[in-house]
Amino acid sequence: MNEVGVGIVGFGTVGKGTADAILQNAAEIEARTGARIRVASVCRRSPLTNGAVPPGAHAVTDWKELVASPGVNIVVETMGGVTAAHELVRAALEAGKPVVTANKNLIAEHGGELFELARRRNVPIGIEASVAGAVPIVRALAEAVCGDRLLALRGILNGTTNYILTRMSQDGLSFEEALRLAQQAGYAEADPTFDIEGIDARDKLCILARLAFRCEISPAQIAATGIGRVSAEDFHYARRLRATIRLLAVAERHGDELEVSVRPWLVSRKSILSSVEGAHNAVMLEGERTGTHMLYGRGAGSGPTGIAVLSDLMQIASDMAAGKLAFRQSVAAPCDVKLPISAHRVLAPWYLRLTVKDRPGIVAQVAQAIARQHANIDAVCQEPDLKKERLSFVVTVEPVSECAIAQAVKEINSMDFMLEPALVLPILEDAGL
Amino acid sequence: MNEVGVGIVGFGTVGKGTADAILQNAAEIEARTGARIRVASVCRRSPLTNGAVPPGAHAVTDWKELVASPGVNIVVETMGGVTAAHELVRAALEAGKPVVTANKNLIAEHGGELFELARRRNVPIGIEASVAGAVPIVRALAEAVCGDRLLALRGILNGTTNYILTRMSQDGLSFEEALRLAQQAGYAEADPTFDIEGIDARDKLCILARLAFRCEISPAQIAATGIGRVSAEDFHYARRLRATIRLLAVAERHGDELEVSVRPWLVSRKSILSSVEGAHNAVMLEGERTGTHMLYGRGAGSGPTGIAVLSDLMQIASDMAAGKLAFRQSVAAPCDVKLPISAHRVLAPWYLRLTVKDRPGIVAQVAQAIARQHANIDAVCQEPDLKKERLSFVVTVEPVSECAIAQAVKEINSMDFMLEPALVLPILEDAGL
Repeated sequence: MNEVGVGIVGFGTVGKGTADAILQNAAEIEARTGARIRVASVCRRSPLTNGAVPPGAHAVTDWKELVASPGVNIVVETMGGVTAAHELVRAALEAGKPVVTANKNLIAEHGGELFELARRRNVPIGIEASVAGAVPIVRALAEAVCGDRLLALRGILNGTTNYILTRMSQDGLSFEEALRLAQQAGYAEADPTFDIEGIDARDKLCILARLAFRCEISPAQIAATGIGRVSAEDFHYARRLRATIRLLAVAERHGDELEVSVRPWLVSRKSILSSVEGAHNAVMLEGERTGTHMLYGRGAGSGPTGIAVLSDLMQIASDMAAGKLAFRQSVAAPCDVKLPISAHRVLAPWYLRLTVKDRPGIVAQVAQAIARQHANIDAVCQEPDLKKERLSFVVTVEPVSECAIAQAVKEINSMDFMLEPALVLPILEDAGL
Repeated sequence: MNEVGVGIVGFGTVGKGTADAILQNAAEIEARTGARIRVASVCRRSPLTNGAVPPGAHAVTDWKELVASPGVNIVVETMGGVTAAHELVRAALEAGKPVVTANKNLIAEHGGELFELARRRNVPIGIEASVAGAVPIVRALAEAVCGDRLLALRGILNGTTNYILTRMSQDGLSFEEALRLAQQAGYAEADPTFDIEGIDARDKLCILARLAFRCEISPAQIAATGIGRVSAEDFHYARRLRATIRLLAVAERHGDELEVSVRPWLVSRKSILSSVEGAHNAVMLEGERTGTHMLYGRGAGSGPTGIAVLSDLMQIASDMAAGKLAFRQSVAAPCDVKLPISAHRVLAPWYLRLTVKDRPGIVAQVAQAIARQHANIDAVCQEPDLKKERLSFVVTVEPVSECAIAQAVKEINSMDFMLEPALVLPILEDAGL
């Protein structure tokens, strides 16, 4: 069979982007796969106007009809949400039809179960589009560095927060001003909670950490701290420290444990991750043999995400054309490695921003609290011309475990001059070299 | 068959790196592929000492014996050079055995013919390790962005020259001093011609341009200019222009033509390519739908290149274990797109460094020559405290075709105050956003 019919469920931005790419690059796709891919069917709850239906495609409003259609050989799930998408993907796999999905929530929550079902039915499932748009990070982890022992994965996985932090850094804006700009530019939703609280990045990290470390992990196990407490002031200090601030999703091996977190980091200008600006995504990998490498690109949008969906479609269509369609072990390898999820094991230098009512002796008291944890202060810096009533200063601390720094900060936060809890950021010094 | 025997020919740095990775990550490899990969045989002309032979492997000195061995299911070619490697790879494919090669010269020169043979024999050929070490650029082009229409590919593909340029930039060294350091650090060979003249990058660009654009292209069609004329002075000017200098391998679509070249560029600090330092490699892709993205990492060494070989081995072993071994269309798609190779079509801003014997009226004459090509000068800058007898200054020109700038430079070079031909670099302004 050299003609492969695709059924797209949830014909929104990504679904349309996929259909457009299939239509416009048909000849090229055939040359590269040996198969003619065509959009056989599209499904959307609210009926599409005729002009919106791809030429030659059948429009339906019930996904069950699409899955059952003999003309649909591969099901593309771009509807989003979890419950209905879960039902759809299960039904397609049960029917022996390969699935390509762009749904990070679904794979983060139910990936293990769906991979197992795909294995039993011996059909492939493609998830490249579920993380970081056109950045081929799923392939990189599943097929390129899979022979290496990974030590750490550090990603900028949420374009909205990276856009906000970039504007704060470049234009000296407050968090609220930058968020408003992001909303105006269409990068942030009216309710931006999922992005700015790190929930979106958490789902993506969950998917990547499983691929990288083959250990079972659920989004709820990942501690997420948002960017709401990062202020314009922090970017002043960051600049003085030759650094910037980024929301990083991190999974790091510590001996036989895995530490996973999403939170803002102070990122040194020496690290190439500090060069990732605007709504871009990037993932930096550190492998025992491969050293440090990075993938970078657009993380969202109909163009990039549509091409990510298409990349999985082409691989599956190519296998169909060659008569060797089967479950793909690489993206869906069993997650049977035992790496307990740990917390507070990160060993890093630290950035503490303290907001205080000034009086003599503050630095001495803070320094004593840090010294009691056997940690060394690297620098103390303060912006000039601040009001005595409410001033901020920054202390950077040489590498020490998060346990130790948390203990020191707990003590500092209870001191009477503190006007709000200290902002604590780990520092990424130089992951790029 | 779940046990897959690998035969490695040319047991040097990369061959040993591959064998080490196979041995040390055996359990992980099996979980991810469903196959047990073992080194069945190694071949080297000069016999190996016993300790150097991987446990359980058979050491031979004649590759024909290795290819014929029933225990060898996949042949790894890491011998280098073209003639013997060509014979070996042909023989293995003819015998129906999959091949994984790290040999850029071989694939640049004979890729088309070997892919055709692999297709006829219906066996896969893996070439990930032939370009940029552990950076999965072959997979990215063949399987990830393959559904997009690529507009341009810009790569830092030679670690030696990037190391030299980085040292010149960071430490203010001359080219000769930086080359000597690169030789001491083991990044450059005693005869560094292939690296510094851009020949090595040319072979790699040839492989990538075929994958990206599916048009037949040979290394000889790619104009290569080395970095020998870049001086410490140029880095002074680059810094003033908020830029650096990098040797870029570029393939760019201009309408229905493809322009390919290897040469030094002035790269603006706004482009993320300017952040690629030391012996690292990076490839930036610009796609119609995917926009700009980049892959970055270590381009050479036994660790990274061994893992790249292993990534192809794992994919092939996985297919063998699933009983669906076959030719892989994706990396070896036919190169039947007609994109004539063009020259001097690049439209870019330009950097001209002129070295002159000073006298009044020079800038006016230079400006007239540029104006005659309907090109606009952007800036003129000069380092202070230079000798009148031999001073340099820099002119930057707003975007104009290479034809026009070449014409202007030809005229300028013939002027009596010129002490040596102008150094002409195209400027990459902002490929990262």
